[in-house]
Amino acid sequence: MPVRKEDYTKVYEALSAEGRQELYSRLTELISEERRGVFERLAPNRTRHITVVLEDVFQSHNASAVLRSCDCFGVQDVHIVAQRNQFTISSEVAMGSNKWVDYYMHRDIRETYAQLRAKGYRIVATLPHERDTLITDLDISQPTALVFGTELTGLTAEAVEGADSYVKIPMYGFTESFNISVATALSLFSLTERMRRGESSNWRLSEEELLALKLDWCIQTIRDGESVAREIVQQLLLGSGM
Amino acid sequence: MPVRKEDYTKVYEALSAEGRQELYSRLTELISEERRGVFERLAPNRTRHITVVLEDVFQSHNASAVLRSCDCFGVQDVHIVAQRNQFTISSEVAMGSNKWVDYYMHRDIRETYAQLRAKGYRIVATLPHERDTLITDLDISQPTALVFGTELTGLTAEAVEGADSYVKIPMYGFTESFNISVATALSLFSLTERMRRGESSNWRLSEEELLALKLDWCIQTIRDGESVAREIVQQLLLGSGM
Repeated sequence: MPVRKEDYTKVYEALSAEGRQELYSRLTELISEERRGVFERLAPNRTRHITVVLEDVFQSHNASAVLRSCDCFGVQDVHIVAQRNQFTISSEVAMGSNKWVDYYMHRDIRETYAQLRAKGYRIVATLPHERDTLITDLDISQPTALVFGTELTGLTAEAVEGADSYVKIPMYGFTESFNISVATALSLFSLTERMRRGESSNWRLSEEELLALKLDWCIQTIRDGESVAREIVQQLLLGSGM
Repeated sequence: MPVRKEDYTKVYEALSAEGRQELYSRLTELISEERRGVFERLAPNRTRHITVVLEDVFQSHNASAVLRSCDCFGVQDVHIVAQRNQFTISSEVAMGSNKWVDYYMHRDIRETYAQLRAKGYRIVATLPHERDTLITDLDISQPTALVFGTELTGLTAEAVEGADSYVKIPMYGFTESFNISVATALSLFSLTERMRRGESSNWRLSEEELLALKLDWCIQTIRDGESVAREIVQQLLLGSGM
Protein backbone atom coordinates (compact mmCIF):
# COMPACT_ATOMS: atom_id res chain seq x y z
CA MET A 1 0.00 0.00 0.00
CA PRO A 2 1.27 3.46 -0.77
CA VAL A 3 1.99 5.72 2.15
CA ARG A 4 -0.19 8.79 1.99
CA LYS A 5 1.18 12.16 3.10
CA GLU A 6 -1.17 12.43 6.08
CA ASP A 7 -4.41 10.57 6.22
CA TYR A 8 -7.04 12.21 8.39
CA THR A 9 -9.92 10.18 7.03
CA LYS A 10 -9.61 7.76 9.96
CA VAL A 11 -10.39 10.63 12.31
CA TYR A 12 -13.97 10.86 11.09
CA GLU A 13 -14.65 7.51 9.43
CA ALA A 14 -17.28 6.67 12.06
CA LEU A 15 -19.32 9.74 11.10
CA SER A 16 -22.20 9.73 8.63
CA ALA A 17 -22.27 12.20 5.73
CA GLU A 18 -24.30 14.62 7.88
CA GLY A 19 -21.86 14.19 10.75
CA ARG A 20 -18.97 15.06 8.48
CA GLN A 21 -20.75 18.15 7.26
CA GLU A 22 -21.30 19.17 10.87
CA LEU A 23 -17.62 18.49 11.64
CA TYR A 24 -16.69 20.78 8.76
CA SER A 25 -18.99 23.54 10.07
CA ARG A 26 -17.42 23.33 13.49
CA LEU A 27 -13.87 23.25 12.16
CA THR A 28 -14.42 26.25 9.93
CA GLU A 29 -15.41 28.25 13.01
CA LEU A 30 -11.78 27.87 14.03
CA ILE A 31 -10.34 29.31 10.82
CA SER A 32 -10.70 32.76 9.33
CA GLU A 33 -13.60 33.69 7.08
CA GLU A 34 -11.08 34.46 4.37
CA ARG A 35 -9.40 31.06 4.59
CA ARG A 36 -12.74 29.32 4.45
CA GLY A 37 -13.56 31.34 1.35
CA VAL A 38 -10.32 30.15 -0.27
CA PHE A 39 -11.22 26.50 0.51
CA GLU A 40 -14.70 26.95 -0.96
CA ARG A 41 -13.31 28.59 -4.07
CA LEU A 42 -10.46 26.15 -4.71
CA ALA A 43 -11.95 22.78 -3.75
CA PRO A 44 -14.45 22.56 -6.64
CA ASN A 45 -11.58 23.16 -9.06
CA ARG A 46 -9.50 20.25 -7.78
CA THR A 47 -9.31 17.09 -9.83
CA ARG A 48 -8.16 13.51 -9.63
CA HIS A 49 -8.95 12.98 -13.30
CA ILE A 50 -5.36 13.90 -14.08
CA THR A 51 -2.67 12.63 -11.73
CA VAL A 52 1.12 12.65 -11.75
CA VAL A 53 3.62 9.85 -11.16
CA LEU A 54 7.21 10.88 -10.48
CA GLU A 55 9.70 8.10 -10.89
CA ASP A 56 12.89 8.39 -8.89
CA VAL A 57 13.34 12.13 -9.05
CA PHE A 58 16.84 12.74 -7.80
CA GLN A 59 16.67 16.35 -6.81
CA SER A 60 13.99 17.00 -4.26
CA HIS A 61 13.71 20.66 -5.29
CA ASN A 62 12.45 19.39 -8.63
CA ALA A 63 9.88 17.15 -6.99
CA SER A 64 8.83 20.06 -4.80
CA ALA A 65 8.42 22.26 -7.86
CA VAL A 66 6.18 19.56 -9.33
CA LEU A 67 3.98 19.61 -6.19
CA ARG A 68 3.69 23.35 -6.58
CA SER A 69 2.62 23.05 -10.22
CA CYS A 70 0.05 20.39 -9.28
CA ASP A 71 -1.38 22.76 -6.71
CA CYS A 72 -1.45 25.63 -9.22
CA PHE A 73 -3.34 23.57 -11.78
CA GLY A 74 -5.63 21.91 -9.24
CA VAL A 75 -4.17 18.41 -9.63
CA GLN A 76 -4.82 16.87 -6.23
CA ASP A 77 -2.83 13.60 -6.25
CA VAL A 78 0.86 13.02 -6.85
CA HIS A 79 2.47 9.59 -6.72
CA ILE A 80 6.16 9.50 -5.90
CA VAL A 81 7.99 6.28 -6.64
CA ALA A 82 11.29 6.33 -4.77
CA GLN A 83 13.20 3.11 -5.14
CA ARG A 84 16.61 4.63 -4.77
CA ASN A 85 16.14 8.20 -3.69
CA GLN A 86 15.17 9.53 -0.37
CA PHE A 87 12.45 12.04 -1.01
CA THR A 88 12.15 15.19 1.03
CA ILE A 89 10.07 18.27 0.37
CA SER A 90 11.95 21.50 -0.20
CA SER A 91 9.70 23.97 1.58
CA GLU A 92 11.22 26.96 -0.17
CA VAL A 93 10.34 25.55 -3.59
CA ALA A 94 7.06 23.85 -2.67
CA MET A 95 5.81 27.10 -1.08
CA GLY A 96 3.44 25.17 1.14
CA SER A 97 1.84 23.26 -1.74
CA ASN A 98 2.68 19.99 0.06
CA LYS A 99 -0.02 20.94 2.59
CA TRP A 100 -2.73 21.15 -0.08
CA VAL A 101 -1.78 18.41 -2.50
CA ASP A 102 -2.05 14.71 -1.57
CA TYR A 103 1.12 12.85 -2.28
CA TYR A 104 1.60 9.13 -1.97
CA MET A 105 4.95 7.41 -1.54
CA HIS A 106 5.53 4.18 -3.45
CA ARG A 107 8.45 1.78 -3.67
CA ASP A 108 7.75 -0.02 -6.89
CA ILE A 109 6.69 1.31 -10.29
CA ARG A 110 4.86 -1.85 -11.37
CA GLU A 111 2.80 -1.89 -8.21
CA THR A 112 2.07 1.79 -8.64
CA TYR A 113 0.83 1.23 -12.17
CA ALA A 114 -1.31 -1.71 -11.02
CA GLN A 115 -2.91 0.35 -8.27
CA LEU A 116 -3.64 3.23 -10.61
CA ARG A 117 -5.08 0.91 -13.26
CA ALA A 118 -7.33 -0.63 -10.63
CA LYS A 119 -8.71 2.88 -10.11
CA GLY A 120 -9.39 3.30 -13.82
CA TYR A 121 -6.34 5.30 -14.83
CA ARG A 122 -4.61 5.06 -18.16
CA ILE A 123 -0.83 5.25 -17.69
CA VAL A 124 0.83 7.73 -20.04
CA ALA A 125 4.62 8.04 -20.01
CA THR A 126 6.24 11.29 -21.11
CA LEU A 127 9.13 10.70 -23.49
CA PRO A 128 10.64 13.79 -25.08
CA HIS A 129 12.09 12.06 -28.12
CA GLU A 130 9.50 9.51 -29.10
CA ARG A 131 7.46 10.06 -32.23
CA ASP A 132 4.24 9.69 -30.43
CA THR A 133 1.18 11.64 -29.51
CA LEU A 134 1.70 15.30 -28.67
CA ILE A 135 0.53 16.26 -25.21
CA THR A 136 -1.81 18.74 -26.94
CA ASP A 137 -3.52 15.86 -28.77
CA LEU A 138 -3.72 13.35 -25.91
CA ASP A 139 -7.22 11.99 -25.40
CA ILE A 140 -8.23 12.81 -21.83
CA SER A 141 -11.70 11.34 -21.71
CA GLN A 142 -10.37 8.61 -19.39
CA PRO A 143 -8.62 9.31 -16.05
CA THR A 144 -4.98 9.86 -16.93
CA ALA A 145 -1.79 9.28 -14.93
CA LEU A 146 1.17 11.15 -16.45
CA VAL A 147 4.55 9.60 -15.64
CA PHE A 148 7.70 11.72 -15.46
CA GLY A 149 11.22 10.38 -15.02
CA THR A 150 14.39 11.57 -13.43
CA GLU A 151 16.53 14.37 -14.74
CA LEU A 152 19.50 12.09 -15.19
CA THR A 153 18.35 9.00 -16.97
CA GLY A 154 14.73 9.59 -17.92
CA LEU A 155 12.23 6.86 -17.20
CA THR A 156 13.38 3.34 -16.40
CA ALA A 157 12.69 0.59 -18.94
CA GLU A 158 10.10 -0.81 -16.54
CA ALA A 159 8.27 2.49 -16.38
CA VAL A 160 8.30 2.85 -20.16
CA GLU A 161 7.28 -0.71 -21.01
CA GLY A 162 4.53 -0.77 -18.41
CA ALA A 163 2.81 2.35 -19.76
CA ASP A 164 -0.32 2.26 -21.93
CA SER A 165 0.77 5.11 -24.18
CA TYR A 166 3.32 7.84 -24.65
CA VAL A 167 3.29 11.58 -25.14
CA LYS A 168 5.75 14.31 -25.84
CA ILE A 169 5.73 18.08 -25.61
CA PRO A 170 5.91 19.78 -29.02
CA MET A 171 9.34 21.39 -29.45
CA TYR A 172 10.85 23.36 -32.29
CA GLY A 173 14.34 24.15 -31.05
CA PHE A 174 17.95 23.05 -30.93
CA THR A 175 17.75 22.45 -27.19
CA GLU A 176 15.16 19.69 -27.23
CA SER A 177 14.62 19.30 -23.54
CA PHE A 178 13.02 20.94 -20.58
CA ASN A 179 13.91 20.35 -16.99
CA ILE A 180 11.38 18.23 -15.17
CA SER A 181 9.64 21.09 -13.39
CA VAL A 182 9.05 22.95 -16.67
CA ALA A 183 8.01 19.74 -18.46
CA THR A 184 5.48 18.92 -15.74
CA ALA A 185 4.09 22.44 -15.63
CA LEU A 186 3.63 22.50 -19.41
CA SER A 187 1.97 19.09 -19.48
CA LEU A 188 -0.40 19.78 -16.61
CA PHE A 189 -1.27 23.20 -17.98
CA SER A 190 -2.11 21.72 -21.36
CA LEU A 191 -4.18 18.82 -20.03
CA THR A 192 -6.04 20.67 -17.27
CA GLU A 193 -6.90 23.57 -19.58
CA ARG A 194 -8.48 21.18 -22.06
CA MET A 195 -10.16 19.32 -19.23
CA ARG A 196 -11.73 22.51 -17.86
CA ARG A 197 -12.80 23.58 -21.33
CA GLY A 198 -14.93 20.47 -21.54
CA GLU A 199 -12.79 17.77 -23.16
CA SER A 200 -13.50 15.52 -20.21
CA SER A 201 -16.85 15.61 -18.54
CA ASN A 202 -16.12 13.69 -15.37
CA TRP A 203 -13.13 15.50 -13.91
CA ARG A 204 -14.71 16.94 -10.78
CA LEU A 205 -14.47 15.42 -7.30
CA SER A 206 -17.57 13.71 -5.92
CA GLU A 207 -19.48 15.44 -3.09
CA GLU A 208 -17.91 13.01 -0.65
CA GLU A 209 -14.39 13.63 -1.93
CA LEU A 210 -14.98 17.36 -1.88
CA LEU A 211 -15.98 17.32 1.76
CA ALA A 212 -13.06 15.02 2.68
CA LEU A 213 -10.69 17.42 0.95
CA LYS A 214 -12.04 20.44 2.80
CA LEU A 215 -11.87 18.55 6.10
CA ASP A 216 -8.28 17.65 5.31
CA TRP A 217 -7.42 21.28 4.55
CA CYS A 218 -9.09 22.44 7.78
CA ILE A 219 -7.19 19.93 9.87
CA GLN A 220 -3.94 21.01 8.16
CA THR A 221 -4.70 24.63 8.92
CA ILE A 222 -5.81 24.43 12.55
CA ARG A 223 -3.08 24.17 15.14
CA ASP A 224 -3.11 20.65 16.53
CA GLY A 225 -5.90 20.06 14.04
CA GLU A 226 -6.07 16.30 14.33
CA SER A 227 -6.72 16.35 18.10
CA VAL A 228 -9.23 19.14 17.71
CA ALA A 229 -11.08 17.17 15.04
CA ARG A 230 -11.04 13.98 17.13
CA GLU A 231 -12.59 15.81 20.01
CA ILE A 232 -15.40 17.22 17.87
CA VAL A 233 -15.99 13.75 16.40
CA GLN A 234 -16.33 12.34 19.93
CA GLN A 235 -18.84 15.02 20.85
CA LEU A 236 -20.83 14.37 17.69
CA LEU A 237 -20.85 10.60 18.20
CA LEU A 238 -21.89 10.91 21.83
CA GLY A 239 -24.29 13.81 21.42
CA SER A 240 -26.46 12.84 18.53
CA GLY A 241 -25.67 9.33 17.50
CA MET A 242 -24.40 10.66 14.13
CA MET B 1 19.58 51.40 -30.49
CA PRO B 2 19.47 47.99 -28.89
CA VAL B 3 22.65 45.96 -28.96
CA ARG B 4 22.09 42.73 -30.82
CA LYS B 5 23.81 39.55 -29.65
CA GLU B 6 25.99 39.23 -32.76
CA ASP B 7 25.03 40.83 -36.01
CA TYR B 8 26.46 39.11 -39.06
CA THR B 9 24.19 40.84 -41.55
CA LYS B 10 26.91 43.43 -42.27
CA VAL B 11 29.12 40.61 -43.54
CA TYR B 12 26.93 40.02 -46.57
CA GLU B 13 24.91 43.23 -46.93
CA ALA B 14 26.61 43.99 -50.27
CA LEU B 15 25.29 40.73 -51.76
CA SER B 16 22.09 40.39 -53.78
CA ALA B 17 19.46 37.80 -52.82
CA GLU B 18 21.07 35.32 -55.25
CA GLY B 19 24.50 36.09 -53.81
CA ARG B 20 23.25 35.33 -50.32
CA GLN B 21 21.78 32.06 -51.47
CA GLU B 22 25.14 31.18 -53.01
CA LEU B 23 26.89 32.17 -49.76
CA TYR B 24 24.57 29.83 -47.88
CA SER B 25 25.34 26.97 -50.28
CA ARG B 26 29.07 27.47 -49.82
CA LEU B 27 28.82 27.77 -46.05
CA THR B 28 26.74 24.61 -45.73
CA GLU B 29 29.55 22.71 -47.49
CA LEU B 30 31.55 23.42 -44.36
CA ILE B 31 29.03 21.92 -41.96
CA SER B 32 27.72 18.39 -41.65
CA GLU B 33 24.78 17.15 -43.70
CA GLU B 34 23.00 16.45 -40.45
CA ARG B 35 23.47 19.96 -39.10
CA ARG B 36 22.24 21.46 -42.35
CA GLY B 37 19.18 19.21 -42.08
CA VAL B 38 18.50 20.57 -38.60
CA PHE B 39 18.72 24.16 -39.88
CA GLU B 40 16.33 23.39 -42.75
CA ARG B 41 13.90 21.71 -40.41
CA LEU B 42 13.93 24.32 -37.64
CA ALA B 43 14.19 27.62 -39.52
CA PRO B 44 10.68 27.49 -41.07
CA ASN B 45 9.26 27.00 -37.57
CA ARG B 46 10.88 30.13 -36.13
CA THR B 47 8.74 33.19 -35.53
CA ARG B 48 9.02 36.86 -34.69
CA HIS B 49 5.25 37.13 -34.38
CA ILE B 50 5.62 36.44 -30.67
CA THR B 51 8.55 38.02 -28.88
CA VAL B 52 9.65 38.29 -25.25
CA VAL B 53 10.72 41.29 -23.20
CA LEU B 54 12.50 40.56 -19.93
CA GLU B 55 12.63 43.50 -17.58
CA ASP B 56 15.49 43.55 -15.10
CA VAL B 57 15.74 39.86 -14.42
CA PHE B 58 18.00 39.58 -11.41
CA GLN B 59 19.17 36.03 -11.69
CA SER B 60 20.86 35.32 -14.97
CA HIS B 61 20.07 31.60 -14.72
CA ASN B 62 16.42 32.58 -15.01
CA ALA B 63 17.06 34.72 -18.07
CA SER B 64 19.06 31.85 -19.55
CA ALA B 65 16.18 29.46 -18.91
CA VAL B 66 13.92 31.91 -20.77
CA LEU B 67 16.27 31.86 -23.78
CA ARG B 68 16.09 28.08 -23.73
CA SER B 69 12.29 28.12 -23.70
CA CYS B 70 12.25 30.63 -26.57
CA ASP B 71 14.46 28.29 -28.57
CA CYS B 72 12.25 25.30 -27.74
CA PHE B 73 9.10 27.09 -28.89
CA GLY B 74 10.73 28.70 -31.92
CA VAL B 75 10.53 32.26 -30.61
CA GLN B 76 13.47 33.93 -32.33
CA ASP B 77 13.79 37.33 -30.61
CA VAL B 78 14.26 38.14 -26.94
CA HIS B 79 14.61 41.69 -25.63
CA ILE B 80 16.46 42.09 -22.37
CA VAL B 81 16.07 45.39 -20.57
CA ALA B 82 18.82 45.69 -18.00
CA GLN B 83 18.78 49.03 -16.25
CA ARG B 84 20.27 47.80 -13.03
CA ASN B 85 21.41 44.28 -13.58
CA GLN B 86 24.37 43.05 -15.43
CA PHE B 87 23.14 40.31 -17.70
CA THR B 88 25.23 37.26 -18.42
CA ILE B 89 24.22 34.00 -20.02
CA SER B 90 24.47 30.91 -17.87
CA SER B 91 25.70 28.38 -20.41
CA GLU B 92 24.68 25.42 -18.29
CA VAL B 93 21.07 26.57 -18.17
CA ALA B 94 20.85 28.07 -21.66
CA MET B 95 22.25 24.81 -23.12
CA GLY B 96 23.53 26.66 -26.18
CA SER B 97 20.17 28.29 -26.95
CA ASN B 98 21.90 31.70 -26.87
CA LYS B 99 23.57 30.70 -30.14
CA TRP B 100 20.26 30.13 -31.90
CA VAL B 101 18.03 32.82 -30.45
CA ASP B 102 18.57 36.53 -31.18
CA TYR B 103 18.68 38.57 -28.07
CA TYR B 104 18.86 42.33 -27.90
CA MET B 105 20.13 44.30 -24.94
CA HIS B 106 18.23 47.47 -24.01
CA ARG B 107 18.71 50.08 -21.30
CA ASP B 108 15.29 51.65 -21.09
CA ILE B 109 11.84 50.04 -21.02
CA ARG B 110 10.06 53.01 -22.62
CA GLU B 111 12.46 53.07 -25.52
CA THR B 112 12.11 49.31 -25.89
CA TYR B 113 8.34 49.59 -26.05
CA ALA B 114 8.58 52.42 -28.61
CA GLN B 115 10.89 50.39 -30.84
CA LEU B 116 8.65 47.34 -30.66
CA ARG B 117 5.54 49.41 -31.39
CA ALA B 118 7.28 50.92 -34.41
CA LYS B 119 7.63 47.35 -35.68
CA GLY B 120 3.92 46.70 -35.20
CA TYR B 121 3.99 44.88 -31.87
CA ARG B 122 1.30 45.06 -29.24
CA ILE B 123 2.86 45.20 -25.76
CA VAL B 124 1.30 42.72 -23.34
CA ALA B 125 2.45 42.71 -19.72
CA THR B 126 2.13 39.53 -17.66
CA LEU B 127 0.65 40.21 -14.23
CA PRO B 128 -0.19 37.15 -12.14
CA HIS B 129 -2.80 38.80 -9.95
CA GLU B 130 -4.69 41.11 -12.27
CA ARG B 131 -8.23 40.25 -13.23
CA ASP B 132 -7.47 40.48 -16.87
CA THR B 133 -7.34 38.37 -19.97
CA LEU B 134 -6.14 34.81 -19.52
CA ILE B 135 -3.11 33.92 -21.63
CA THR B 136 -5.25 31.21 -23.20
CA ASP B 137 -7.71 33.86 -24.45
CA LEU B 138 -5.23 36.49 -25.63
CA ASP B 139 -5.85 37.61 -29.19
CA ILE B 140 -2.68 36.91 -31.16
CA SER B 141 -3.70 38.12 -34.60
CA GLN B 142 -1.29 41.05 -34.16
CA PRO B 143 2.46 40.65 -33.45
CA THR B 144 2.72 40.34 -29.68
CA ALA B 145 5.50 41.25 -27.27
CA LEU B 146 5.07 39.54 -23.90
CA VAL B 147 6.70 41.36 -20.99
CA PHE B 148 7.95 39.50 -17.91
CA GLY B 149 9.31 41.12 -14.77
CA THR B 150 11.85 40.25 -12.15
CA GLU B 151 11.41 37.57 -9.56
CA LEU B 152 11.67 40.02 -6.70
CA THR B 153 9.40 42.90 -7.46
CA GLY B 154 7.50 42.01 -10.61
CA LEU B 155 7.26 44.58 -13.35
CA THR B 156 8.12 48.23 -12.69
CA ALA B 157 5.29 50.77 -12.76
CA GLU B 158 6.73 52.10 -16.01
CA ALA B 159 6.59 48.67 -17.63
CA VAL B 160 3.01 48.14 -16.45
CA GLU B 161 1.64 51.56 -17.38
CA GLY B 162 3.32 51.54 -20.77
CA ALA B 163 1.74 48.25 -21.85
CA ASP B 164 -1.24 47.97 -24.18
CA SER B 165 -2.86 45.12 -22.32
CA TYR B 166 -2.37 42.55 -19.59
CA VAL B 167 -2.56 38.80 -19.27
CA LYS B 168 -2.33 36.21 -16.56
CA ILE B 169 -1.85 32.48 -16.45
CA PRO B 170 -4.92 30.61 -15.17
CA MET B 171 -4.23 29.23 -11.69
CA TYR B 172 -6.34 27.20 -9.29
CA GLY B 173 -4.07 26.75 -6.31
CA PHE B 174 -3.00 28.09 -2.95
CA THR B 175 0.46 28.89 -4.27
CA GLU B 176 -0.52 31.44 -6.88
CA SER B 177 2.81 32.01 -8.49
CA PHE B 178 5.29 30.43 -10.82
CA ASN B 179 8.93 31.29 -11.06
CA ILE B 180 9.76 33.32 -14.13
CA SER B 181 11.16 30.44 -16.15
CA VAL B 182 8.00 28.37 -15.66
CA ALA B 183 5.75 31.39 -16.29
CA THR B 184 7.55 32.17 -19.54
CA ALA B 185 7.52 28.56 -20.71
CA LEU B 186 3.77 28.27 -20.03
CA SER B 187 2.97 31.54 -21.78
CA LEU B 188 5.07 30.82 -24.86
CA PHE B 189 3.76 27.28 -25.08
CA SER B 190 0.18 28.51 -24.97
CA LEU B 191 0.64 31.32 -27.52
CA THR B 192 2.87 29.49 -29.99
CA GLU B 193 0.62 26.41 -29.96
CA ARG B 194 -2.38 28.54 -30.88
CA MET B 195 -0.30 30.41 -33.43
CA ARG B 196 0.79 27.19 -35.14
CA ARG B 197 -2.76 25.87 -35.09
CA GLY B 198 -3.81 28.81 -37.23
CA GLU B 199 -4.93 31.55 -34.84
CA SER B 200 -2.48 33.90 -36.52
CA SER B 201 -1.87 33.63 -40.21
CA ASN B 202 1.21 35.76 -40.58
CA TRP B 203 3.63 34.27 -38.06
CA ARG B 204 6.26 32.87 -40.42
CA LEU B 205 9.54 34.57 -41.30
CA SER B 206 9.83 36.12 -44.77
CA GLU B 207 12.08 34.37 -47.32
CA GLU B 208 14.70 37.04 -46.70
CA GLU B 209 14.55 36.63 -42.92
CA LEU B 210 14.69 32.86 -43.27
CA LEU B 211 17.87 33.02 -45.33
CA ALA B 212 19.44 35.57 -42.95
CA LEU B 213 18.66 33.27 -40.03
CA LYS B 214 20.23 30.25 -41.69
CA LEU B 215 23.30 32.31 -42.62
CA ASP B 216 23.54 33.43 -39.02
CA TRP B 217 23.31 29.85 -37.76
CA CYS B 218 25.99 28.72 -40.25
CA ILE B 219 28.36 31.48 -39.21
CA GLN B 220 27.76 30.58 -35.55
CA THR B 221 28.51 26.95 -36.28
CA ILE B 222 31.64 27.21 -38.43
CA ARG B 223 34.89 27.82 -36.60
CA ASP B 224 35.95 31.40 -37.24
CA GLY B 225 32.71 31.65 -39.22
CA GLU B 226 32.68 35.40 -39.65
CA SER B 227 36.10 35.48 -41.39
CA VAL B 228 35.20 32.48 -43.51
CA ALA B 229 31.97 34.17 -44.61
CA ARG B 230 33.74 37.46 -45.36
CA GLU B 231 36.17 35.65 -47.59
CA ILE B 232 33.42 33.92 -49.56
CA VAL B 233 31.58 37.23 -49.89
CA GLN B 234 34.74 38.82 -51.35
CA GLN B 235 35.08 35.97 -53.85
CA LEU B 236 31.45 36.30 -54.86
CA LEU B 237 31.65 40.08 -55.27
CA LEU B 238 34.84 39.86 -57.31
CA GLY B 239 33.97 36.77 -59.31
CA SER B 240 30.50 37.39 -60.57
CA GLY B 241 29.53 40.92 -59.71
CA MET B 242 26.75 39.54 -57.48
